[in-house]
Amino acid sequence: MAGNDDGRNDERRVHIFDTTLRDGAQTQGVDFGVADKIAIARALDDLGVDYVEGGWPGANPTDDRFFAEPPSFKNAKLVAFGMTRRPGRSAENDPGLAALVNSKADALCMVGKAWDFHVDVALEIDRQENLKMIEDSIAFAKSRKSEAMFDAEHFFDGFKANPEYALACVKAADAGGARWIVLCDTNGGTLPHEVSEIVAEVAKQVPGARLGIHCHNDTENAVANSLAALWAGARQVQGTLNGLGERCGNANTISLIASLALKSDFNIGVSNTQLGHLTHVSRLLDDRLNRAPNRHQPYVGDSAFAHKGGLHVSAVEKDPRTYEHIDPEIVGNQRHIVVSDQAGRSNFLARFREIGLELEAGDKRVNRLLEEVKDLESQGYSFDGAEASFELLARRRLGEVPDYFRMERFRLMDDRRWNARGDLITESEATVTVEVGGQLRHEVASGNGPVNALDVALRKALVWAYPVLEGMALSDYKVRILTPQEGTRAVTRVMIESAAPDGQRWTTLGVSPNIVEASFTALEDSYSWRLFKAGVEPLGPKSAAARN
Amino acid sequence: MAGNDDGRNDERRVHIFDTTLRDGAQTQGVDFGVADKIAIARALDDLGVDYVEGGWPGANPTDDRFFAEPPSFKNAKLVAFGMTRRPGRSAENDPGLAALVNSKADALCMVGKAWDFHVDVALEIDRQENLKMIEDSIAFAKSRKSEAMFDAEHFFDGFKANPEYALACVKAADAGGARWIVLCDTNGGTLPHEVSEIVAEVAKQVPGARLGIHCHNDTENAVANSLAALWAGARQVQGTLNGLGERCGNANTISLIASLALKSDFNIGVSNTQLGHLTHVSRLLDDRLNRAPNRHQPYVGDSAFAHKGGLHVSAVEKDPRTYEHIDPEIVGNQRHIVVSDQAGRSNFLARFREIGLELEAGDKRVNRLLEEVKDLESQGYSFDGAEASFELLARRRLGEVPDYFRMERFRLMDDRRWNARGDLITESEATVTVEVGGQLRHEVASGNGPVNALDVALRKALVWAYPVLEGMALSDYKVRILTPQEGTRAVTRVMIESAAPDGQRWTTLGVSPNIVEASFTALEDSYSWRLFKAGVEPLGPKSAAARN
Repeated sequence: MAGNDDGRNDERRVHIFDTTLRDGAQTQGVDFGVADKIAIARALDDLGVDYVEGGWPGANPTDDRFFAEPPSFKNAKLVAFGMTRRPGRSAENDPGLAALVNSKADALCMVGKAWDFHVDVALEIDRQENLKMIEDSIAFAKSRKSEAMFDAEHFFDGFKANPEYALACVKAADAGGARWIVLCDTNGGTLPHEVSEIVAEVAKQVPGARLGIHCHNDTENAVANSLAALWAGARQVQGTLNGLGERCGNANTISLIASLALKSDFNIGVSNTQLGHLTHVSRLLDDRLNRAPNRHQPYVGDSAFAHKGGLHVSAVEKDPRTYEHIDPEIVGNQRHIVVSDQAGRSNFLARFREIGLELEAGDKRVNRLLEEVKDLESQGYSFDGAEASFELLARRRLGEVPDYFRMERFRLMDDRRWNARGDLITESEATVTVEVGGQLRHEVASGNGPVNALDVALRKALVWAYPVLEGMALSDYKVRILTPQEGTRAVTRVMIESAAPDGQRWTTLGVSPNIVEASFTALEDSYSWRLFKAGVEPLGPKSAAARN
Repeated sequence: MAGNDDGRNDERRVHIFDTTLRDGAQTQGVDFGVADKIAIARALDDLGVDYVEGGWPGANPTDDRFFAEPPSFKNAKLVAFGMTRRPGRSAENDPGLAALVNSKADALCMVGKAWDFHVDVALEIDRQENLKMIEDSIAFAKSRKSEAMFDAEHFFDGFKANPEYALACVKAADAGGARWIVLCDTNGGTLPHEVSEIVAEVAKQVPGARLGIHCHNDTENAVANSLAALWAGARQVQGTLNGLGERCGNANTISLIASLALKSDFNIGVSNTQLGHLTHVSRLLDDRLNRAPNRHQPYVGDSAFAHKGGLHVSAVEKDPRTYEHIDPEIVGNQRHIVVSDQAGRSNFLARFREIGLELEAGDKRVNRLLEEVKDLESQGYSFDGAEASFELLARRRLGEVPDYFRMERFRLMDDRRWNARGDLITESEATVTVEVGGQLRHEVASGNGPVNALDVALRKALVWAYPVLEGMALSDYKVRILTPQEGTRAVTRVMIESAAPDGQRWTTLGVSPNIVEASFTALEDSYSWRLFKAGVEPLGPKSAAARN
C-alpha cells in the first residue's frame, strides 16, 4: 500500500510521479513561493504519490531555497529536474549537473532531446553527441543518487519522424542505467491510438527499459494518452494537480489517481484513506494559487456529483448508482442534492472529529450546524482550508467561545495626493472603537493599506487587555473574487493566515461584497481563535481596571 | 465538403452532432434564451456540423418557441430531442411524441433505457415493454420525419451489466428503422479501452446499425472515449461547444472537430475555411453565457499557443513546429509570446511584433524597455496575462499614448458602524479630483467597497469627456499578495479585466504595498487602453468647453 513500496517485482505496480512544482510551475501566471512548494509537496506525500518533482535546482532562487531545506517525506521520493550535460564537456564538469547532484534530492530526472529535428534545429549539435550527452549524464547521476531518470523530450514527434533515432535515445538512457525512461509528448499533439502503438513498440524494442509517460493536454487527451501508455506497458505516469501546466496543461494527477485506483487492476500504492484526500488536495492547490476551483473538474469538482431535475434526482434517491459512476465520498467529494444529504452529514461528523469535537450523528445541534454551514457556503464561504473559522463557528454554536471584545465602529481613510515635495503618495489610516474589559477604547493607526492600518489599530486597542496577541503576525492574506462577472461590485472572500511565536498557524476567512468588511471579519476571527486556543479568559471590568 | 453530404457511401465519413442547445443547456446556471439558441445554432451551421440538436419541444416554453420558428440552415439538419413513448400506450397516442413529430425539426432523436437495472429500478416496467417502446417510437418517428435516431441511455453500464439486454435495445431501434443508434455513456464512468471493446462488439453483433457515440467527462476522457468509438466503428459523434454540460461536462465539439479534421483520415465535412472559425465559435458561446473563456482550452484557448521562457521562445522563432503541434491560425487562434522575468530579447521583439510594433533588435529603445520591464518585474509586476498594461507601457515609452486625464487626488472612506435600525453596516465612498479637458472635475460616489466606489466616481468624472467609456465594464478583479510573509503590510498585485460592448476584453495591472493604490493604477490603465484602442483624441480645453 505504501508509496515507498518499490514494486520492482509487481508487474501491475504503476508509479505516480507528480510534477506540479516543476512543470506545473511553468504555467502563465503561476508563481509558487517556497512556503507554497513545501505545503504542496507535503500534501502530495500524504496522498501517497511515489515521486514529487520539486523543481530545478540552479534555475532560480526559489528552487535553490526549496532544495536547500526540503521537507522530509513519509513515502515519496523527492526528485530534482535538470538538463543533460552540455555538448562538448564531461558530465563531471558540467555546472548544471553539479547543482543537481549536490542538491538534497533523492532522485534526479534529466531531460534530453529525442527528436532529430530538435537536435538539428534547436540544439544545432551532432546527433551522436546528443546520444552521448544522454548516456553520460544518466550514468553520472546514477553514480551519485539512488535513482536517475531520463525525460525523453518530444519523444512521440521524434518517433513519428525518425523511429530509429528516437529509439537510440531511449537505448542511450538505458545504457546509462536509467531507472525510468519517460516518454514525453512535449507538444501535446499525439492522439491516444498513436500513444498505444508507439509505447507498445518501444516496450518491444527496448525490453529491459522501465517506461514512463508524460503528456500534455493540447488535444484534450492528456489523461487518456497517459492511460493508453500504461495499458501498452509503461509503469510510471507523470502529471500535475488539477492538470496545471503551460498552454492547455498537463495530465491531471487527480484524475489519474482516481481512475487507476477505482477503475483498473493496476496497483498504484495509494490506500483508500489516501484516496479520500483527493478533493482536499485538489482544493489546496487552488487555494495556493488563489483561484476558484473548477466546479466541473472530474471526480473532485463541486458539480461533479450534482444532480438537477426531478426524475434524475428521484432515481438517485432510489439508488445513487443510477446516475453516479462512483461513490463521491471515496474521493472525499460529496453529492449535491437538496434532500437528505447523508454524505454531507458523515463528512461533517468527520470534520468535527478532526477538530476534536465528538458529536453523535443524532445530535440535533449537528443538523443546525449543517444548515448554517450550507447557508454560509451558498453565500460564498468555503471552510476548506480555513479550519480556524470552521472551528470557531462550531464551538460558538456549542456555547464554548466567549466574546473577548466587541467592535463598535471603524473608519478607514485612504488618501492619494501630491505631497509638499511633489510626489504622489497614498496614505491609509484607521480609527477603531472597541469595547473590551468594559471599556470603550478609541484608537487610530496608519498603515501601508487599509487592512494593515485596521490590523494595527485593532491590536493597539486589544493588546493591553490580552498580551498574548502581541507576538502574533499575519503571515498571508488572500483575496478571491467570487462573482467576477460583477466586476468591482463582486462578492469578495478574504483569507488570512496568522502565525504565533510558538509556531502555531491558523487560517480564518470573511466574505462580503465589501473587501474591507470581509477583511475585518477574518481579522476578528483570527484574534478570537488565538485567544480561545490560548485558554484566555475574557477580561472583565474589574480585572481591566486593575490592569490600567 | 459540405455538412449535408449524406456520406452513406463513404466509409470514412464521420457525422458531427452538436447538443449544446439540449444536453449543454442542462448545466447548472445555464439558461439560454431563444435569441441565444438562434445565434448558437447559426454559428454551428456555419461551422459545418451535420446535426444541431435544438432542444426538447414540449419540455419548456423556450424550446417550444425555438422550434415554432427555427433558424433556416445552410448545411445542418435541425434535431428535436424527446423520450420514447410511455409504457402502456401506442406511439400514435403519446402526447410527448406528438410534440416531437409536430415540431419543425428535420430529424428526431429519442432517448430510451439500455440498462436493465434502470428499467427495473428507475422505470419499474417490464423489460420486454421497454424494447417495444423503443421499436414503436422509432418506427412512428421515421414515418413522420426524414430521420429518426435512438439515444441508448446508459448503454455502456448496461452492456457491462447485461450485454444481451443492451444489445436487444440496439436491435429494437434497428428494427424500428433508426438512421443512427447512439451509444451513450450517460454517467461518464467508462474508460477508453472499454469503449473501444464494447463499440467493436456492438458493430459485430448488429452489423446493419449505424452507430453514434455520446460521452460525458466524468473521468476526463470524454473526447478520448468519443475518438475511441469512432476508431472502433461509430460514425456519428455527439458533443457540446467547449464541453458544456452537467457535472463535468460533455465531449467537446471544438476539440473533436479539430482533432478529426487535422489528425485523422476521417472526413467530417468541415472545410478549411470553416475550421478557421473554431476559435470564434468557442468564444461566442462564452459571450452568450457571460463568462470568461477558459485560457487553457485545447486548440482555441488564449494560452493554447503561449510560449514562455527564453530558450523555448528562440526555438519557436527558428521554427514554430519545435513547440507547436499545429499552426494556431488553422483554427483561428494565434501564437502568444508571454512576457515574463525569463524573457530574453527574442521574447521581447516577438511580443512587440504581436502588438503591431516593428522594432529592430538594434534599436536602443528595446534595451531601455527591457530594462524597465525587468525593473518592474522585480517590484512584483507580472505582464503575464496583462497584455494591455504591457502594450501601454511600450507605446507610452515610444511617445504614442497621450495623457487623457490626470488624477489630482482621491480619497476613499470606509465606515463600519451600527445604523439607526441596529444593524452593522459598512459603507464605502470615494471622492476624486481629476483634470480632464483643461477642467478640474470633483466627483463623489459610493459603492459596495472602496474599489467599486472609486471606479464609479472616476467614470463619473470622465464619461462626459469620453463617451466611449460608458459601455465598458470590469469583468474580473484579482488580488494577489506578493510578499505574504509581511502579512497585511504585503505588496499587492491587482489585475483588472475589462470588457466593452463590442466584445473586446483586456487586462491591466497595478502593484503597490497599498491595495487601493494598486487598484487605482490598474483602473487608470484600463481606461487609457480603451481610449487609445478606440483612437480617441485627448480632449482639449476648447472641445471640452463646447461639450459642456
